[in-house]
Amino acid sequence: MNTRLAKRMTRLQASPIRDVLASASQPGMISFAGGLPASDTFPAIDIGCVEDEDLQYGPSEGEWLLRDRIAQDLRQRGFDVDASRVLVLSGSQQGIDLVAKLMIERGRQIAVESPTYLAALQVFKLFGATLVPFCIDSLEQAVGGSDNQQALSSDMLYVNPTFQNPSSRVYTASQRALLATACDSNQTMLFEDDPYRELFYQPCDRQPICSMLERAEWVYQSSFSKTLAPGLRLGYLVCSEALYPPLLKLKQAADLHSNRLSQRLVYRMLCDEPVHARLRDIQDSYRSRRDLFSEALNEHFGALASWQVPTGGLFFWLKLQGALSIDTRKLLQPAIEAGVAFMPGEPFFIDPDTAPGYIRLNFSHTRPDLYGHGLATLATLVRSATSESDEV
Amino acid sequence: MNTRLAKRMTRLQASPIRDVLASASQPGMISFAGGLPASDTFPAIDIGCVEDEDLQYGPSEGEWLLRDRIAQDLRQRGFDVDASRVLVLSGSQQGIDLVAKLMIERGRQIAVESPTYLAALQVFKLFGATLVPFCIDSLEQAVGGSDNQQALSSDMLYVNPTFQNPSSRVYTASQRALLATACDSNQTMLFEDDPYRELFYQPCDRQPICSMLERAEWVYQSSFSKTLAPGLRLGYLVCSEALYPPLLKLKQAADLHSNRLSQRLVYRMLCDEPVHARLRDIQDSYRSRRDLFSEALNEHFGALASWQVPTGGLFFWLKLQGALSIDTRKLLQPAIEAGVAFMPGEPFFIDPDTAPGYIRLNFSHTRPDLYGHGLATLATLVRSATSESDEV
Repeated sequence: MNTRLAKRMTRLQASPIRDVLASASQPGMISFAGGLPASDTFPAIDIGCVEDEDLQYGPSEGEWLLRDRIAQDLRQRGFDVDASRVLVLSGSQQGIDLVAKLMIERGRQIAVESPTYLAALQVFKLFGATLVPFCIDSLEQAVGGSDNQQALSSDMLYVNPTFQNPSSRVYTASQRALLATACDSNQTMLFEDDPYRELFYQPCDRQPICSMLERAEWVYQSSFSKTLAPGLRLGYLVCSEALYPPLLKLKQAADLHSNRLSQRLVYRMLCDEPVHARLRDIQDSYRSRRDLFSEALNEHFGALASWQVPTGGLFFWLKLQGALSIDTRKLLQPAIEAGVAFMPGEPFFIDPDTAPGYIRLNFSHTRPDLYGHGLATLATLVRSATSESDEV
Repeated sequence: MNTRLAKRMTRLQASPIRDVLASASQPGMISFAGGLPASDTFPAIDIGCVEDEDLQYGPSEGEWLLRDRIAQDLRQRGFDVDASRVLVLSGSQQGIDLVAKLMIERGRQIAVESPTYLAALQVFKLFGATLVPFCIDSLEQAVGGSDNQQALSSDMLYVNPTFQNPSSRVYTASQRALLATACDSNQTMLFEDDPYRELFYQPCDRQPICSMLERAEWVYQSSFSKTLAPGLRLGYLVCSEALYPPLLKLKQAADLHSNRLSQRLVYRMLCDEPVHARLRDIQDSYRSRRDLFSEALNEHFGALASWQVPTGGLFFWLKLQGALSIDTRKLLQPAIEAGVAFMPGEPFFIDPDTAPGYIRLNFSHTRPDLYGHGLATLATLVRSATSESDEV
């Protein structure tokens, strides 16, 4: 090909999510791979006739009624905002794309947790970011110390503090306050990604860190993919005042506006349905799945890995014994051939090759009666990989 | 704000489309501004219950059945492709974003018609393109000559050869063949944007130029916004083999995948409905609107402007008398105050400030019985602007 692609394309790796989702949809596959919600949590939607208004072009900001409803929720989370500061997104992946366009060019330093959401890493790298690790524990241990100084003086800090993908970690109240103070005093622009917040299975602090900021610029985003339906592709962001106009222009340039029918459906579900009852049902259902998965894990992985039982979110994050010697990406193909899909841990790290030995297991998508068989199959593969590497 | 935005943000102008769409939606406004389809062309959609599958995450490429159906249409247009080469988009604006990411970085030369679609100019500039003018007439007059040599040796050529927005111009068969040959022999990557192709009101050649290429790389895109419904935000692209994998990765990074419910609805409408009869109805309806608009234009603008009656598409493109002295952007505010919205011509040019005196008028959205009043109001404003500038 004589055609010269933009140099950024050399930095674009296919996210393993894609191939994994493809394999996970094969009939008969037991998939612990994607972050797919359980289909039985989806609402029954009877639309009837679509209104003409929803078929016409609409505003780039999104529908006012939906934005107003979202702003109500945001105020309950501690944000001092109204509908005019809400931007409807075609899924929260789009928010990552827009914020990357806003903030990132070759040479910009972007701080991220490591591990963190791999599709955010993918986009930040595409736009030319130099990635800098951030760790909330070090911030806690050495306030004002040097450990996170590079992260805090970066052009942006991206965090996923509530039931993080992949680790399911949730920041404590004091960690949240500490980070807000650090961002304010360093004027660190904070990008907080919060798609899992409603999927909590026991009480914990979930206050958005962005809602606590006083001086730093910020973008906060969430999604309807985990609580209503991912196929509708709807999320939203809210941000500090100065960032709204440029983000709106970027949204317009990206896809003019989001699907109006989805906006209507989501708005209707947020208003008409007993939303809180639905959320409680989802939480109950996922809590019981989590507990069943935990039991199955204890049985099959008790001697092979360590993990924390997640307080919320959709994942168990396992550190394998003998982790240092196992590239879990190499386990994926044999696992899929054995009928089980999982997510290797490496792609969630800034430098995948230096972080072997983790795997991410989703418990929401596969039926609980298949947990045991799937985990047993996976454990056999891990055991043989571990013993092979012991032999070397 | 201490936060440093990416430098590209200094190049992002708000498209006037946005403000214009906003003003055009005020009650009582007669709008010739946006490219909004007539609501009476929208299909009646009764969805009934949404299937669970459409609520779950889906493939980044789009639904196979829809891609297969699109590929059928593409083969009828002369493309030698199957479903595997079709990428479903969240509207064709997204195609412009993806192709810009693929091809454009600071310093890249991108050739465009001038005037051309303003939201393409907006995105190309955002990504750092140096814009180079391309003109099919010069290519015709001087084959192998120097006029378009810079355009043909650019990194990409973007054209909208069938009922162009804003000019409604359509390339002849020989112009299409000539451009295909020129792209092949110069190995110019061709990006052909074809959203208006089904809106033709008299016979003319509409063969996609990309379908005639033998060596050059290419991307061809179209949309369901003009023939089904823009609010569903669905379009598609097809491209030369080497460009598909990187475009797919970019699509995934942009929004994971397009709305599945929209894909289901569009697929159903393409298969179940008598599509050709629907298209013929739309063509008949728009042809008669075009003719009524033409009559009203003759009456009110006959002495004020010149134009071609469009063969297809949604716009009349007027060159005002005394054009050199009228910045039509300055007419917009008084026009809106007088209850009429239109689209100034300047933003459609590479360098808006050097191209005064054009306006774009849409005839599909406003009711025909309002054409006369709206155009009379506009004509009065134009007349007074012309006489004012004469006085200076």
